[in-house]
Amino acid sequence: MSDQLVISVDAMGGDHGPPVVVAGVDLALDRLAGRSVRFLLHGDRDRIDAEIVRRPRLRDICEIRHTDLVIASDEQPARAMRRGKGSSLWNAIEAIRAEEADAVVSAGNTGALMAISKLILRMMGGSDRPAIVAPWPTLRGVTAVLDVGANLDCDAHQLLEFAILGAAYYQAMHSDGSGRPPTVGLLNVGSEDMKGHQEVRDAHALLREGDFDFDYRGFVEGNDIAMGAVDVIVTDAFTGNVALKTAEGMARFFATTLRAELTSSWINKAGAMVASGALKALKARLDPSSVNGGPLLGLNGTVIKSHGGADASGFANALLVAANLASSRYAEDIARNLARLAPRQAGPDAGAMSEPAQ
Amino acid sequence: MSDQLVISVDAMGGDHGPPVVVAGVDLALDRLAGRSVRFLLHGDRDRIDAEIVRRPRLRDICEIRHTDLVIASDEQPARAMRRGKGSSLWNAIEAIRAEEADAVVSAGNTGALMAISKLILRMMGGSDRPAIVAPWPTLRGVTAVLDVGANLDCDAHQLLEFAILGAAYYQAMHSDGSGRPPTVGLLNVGSEDMKGHQEVRDAHALLREGDFDFDYRGFVEGNDIAMGAVDVIVTDAFTGNVALKTAEGMARFFATTLRAELTSSWINKAGAMVASGALKALKARLDPSSVNGGPLLGLNGTVIKSHGGADASGFANALLVAANLASSRYAEDIARNLARLAPRQAGPDAGAMSEPAQ
Repeated sequence: MSDQLVISVDAMGGDHGPPVVVAGVDLALDRLAGRSVRFLLHGDRDRIDAEIVRRPRLRDICEIRHTDLVIASDEQPARAMRRGKGSSLWNAIEAIRAEEADAVVSAGNTGALMAISKLILRMMGGSDRPAIVAPWPTLRGVTAVLDVGANLDCDAHQLLEFAILGAAYYQAMHSDGSGRPPTVGLLNVGSEDMKGHQEVRDAHALLREGDFDFDYRGFVEGNDIAMGAVDVIVTDAFTGNVALKTAEGMARFFATTLRAELTSSWINKAGAMVASGALKALKARLDPSSVNGGPLLGLNGTVIKSHGGADASGFANALLVAANLASSRYAEDIARNLARLAPRQAGPDAGAMSEPAQ
Repeated sequence: MSDQLVISVDAMGGDHGPPVVVAGVDLALDRLAGRSVRFLLHGDRDRIDAEIVRRPRLRDICEIRHTDLVIASDEQPARAMRRGKGSSLWNAIEAIRAEEADAVVSAGNTGALMAISKLILRMMGGSDRPAIVAPWPTLRGVTAVLDVGANLDCDAHQLLEFAILGAAYYQAMHSDGSGRPPTVGLLNVGSEDMKGHQEVRDAHALLREGDFDFDYRGFVEGNDIAMGAVDVIVTDAFTGNVALKTAEGMARFFATTLRAELTSSWINKAGAMVASGALKALKARLDPSSVNGGPLLGLNGTVIKSHGGADASGFANALLVAANLASSRYAEDIARNLARLAPRQAGPDAGAMSEPAQ
């Protein structure tokens, strides 16, 4: 591949398909600020083209790869694997394996994306399934929380791998350039060594003993997430999914409550009008789509999942994550740290994939 | 016991001890609005008395039960059980067993409170440890989330018991008086039947088949909590604790961000000043101490845990929860529904208690 970055895009994924995907490509182009980039857009040629004609500058840097086949958002991953070959999602991933592209972005069916990515690209380590990281806005910036994907029951070694994956991701995406290694915490119900269930206590012991390129800080609790206590927070996908969705619910609760209070009388309305700049800025900081774009970690290749409901701005952000990860050293970081595990990692077999969480 | 309600209080528990406890009793008296109530205050006579002399109306309704022994907030539960006999916490619970009081409230060491309550009062059902319910402010009122205590690894039968305990608690504390049975949801990472790990899927099947005095609505997700999608949400204590603390972190994040935005310029400050009533009302709605007071469910007796850091108003609320539960039919509700489990509940033995979560 040349110095030009190529991003492969599933143009049919998500709630909106081509209109949001192509508008997202257009926005991403501005944010990529002069970097040389091309896009492979997989899906219905006519629908994609209808969006591109309205944005002439995209004509030269977008290549449409037509396919009629689309994996439905509610299709079972096992079924998608059987009959998804040649779909927009499948072809988008295949372009990485064929070394035609450096990264892939899809807002489609998460389970199918995970299963087909694993099938085509294979896992790097001993993990059974790719891990999904949630970039979480905090008081100190962004904390990477993983897994929020499909690894619902995790043993200590899987949690250890998540630490490696998350630290490499954080280093690539959010490093402050100081050379300081990322800090990593293990999510638990207390900070003392004897707290929590067996898996987290075993992972705690392995992380303390190990020699990795990150700074392990021990157990953290749920309230440490939004405080930004550490850069990377490791947990199983059941807990991670519940934490993430609980926080989303809280954000909606706050926004609704604030709006109700600020419209409860004319004097409050007047105050809200005067402070409208602050309230808009607040909304932007709480908006999850401002940090949309979660990579599927642990694969031989850069695969980014966008929220199905993300708007063009959110999708553009996912494209930026793809561009930044693909041009970083994170794959080497992961490989180097996973290699240090090799002696103790007998590892469960990376067997067949059953139903993922989301 | 007479019609007069008697509440037994561990006056030495929590971060503040007698000053906050006695001030809380004083506030509770106003909120109990003429109901006939007495308090047994267990702890250091001099320190408790110093607070009571400043509030003459408490003299006749408070009885001080002196003890020098206090269980430290960081004491291991196993050690507290061995050497805690005669402590303020122990004596406060013992007063229920001796039928001198109808309910007990403590802001002390949660692990010790659970262990000693279980030792003195015994469990009603097959559960190993008492369940702690978090009353969660939502867009629709309050949702009861349990367990947020010590049952970290739960099988399907334990989750089923939590549904029974939570529904009875909700009926007693938050019923709208319409006779509508409480709605119950099981916390999971998706709403379809095949989502989640084995324990939640098995519990889902048991709850659907069972005949209970509540309305089981199936799986709910993290974002459903703050939306108030159901009245009672059931989960294991690991997940529940993480969800609760994640939400606490989000509340702090939200408040801090709002404050920063509203003081970022003179115009925003002016707006905030004009709308200060709304912002104060918002703060009150988000304040966790406004719903302080979590019962330890599943015991033969009403035991309420107050946050260790709660202020007098929060402690007063915990006393109100004690008064309301003790004068409700929730104990009978639980016994009746647990009895319906009996045929299938072989049950794990209610064995020795190890370290709880918090």
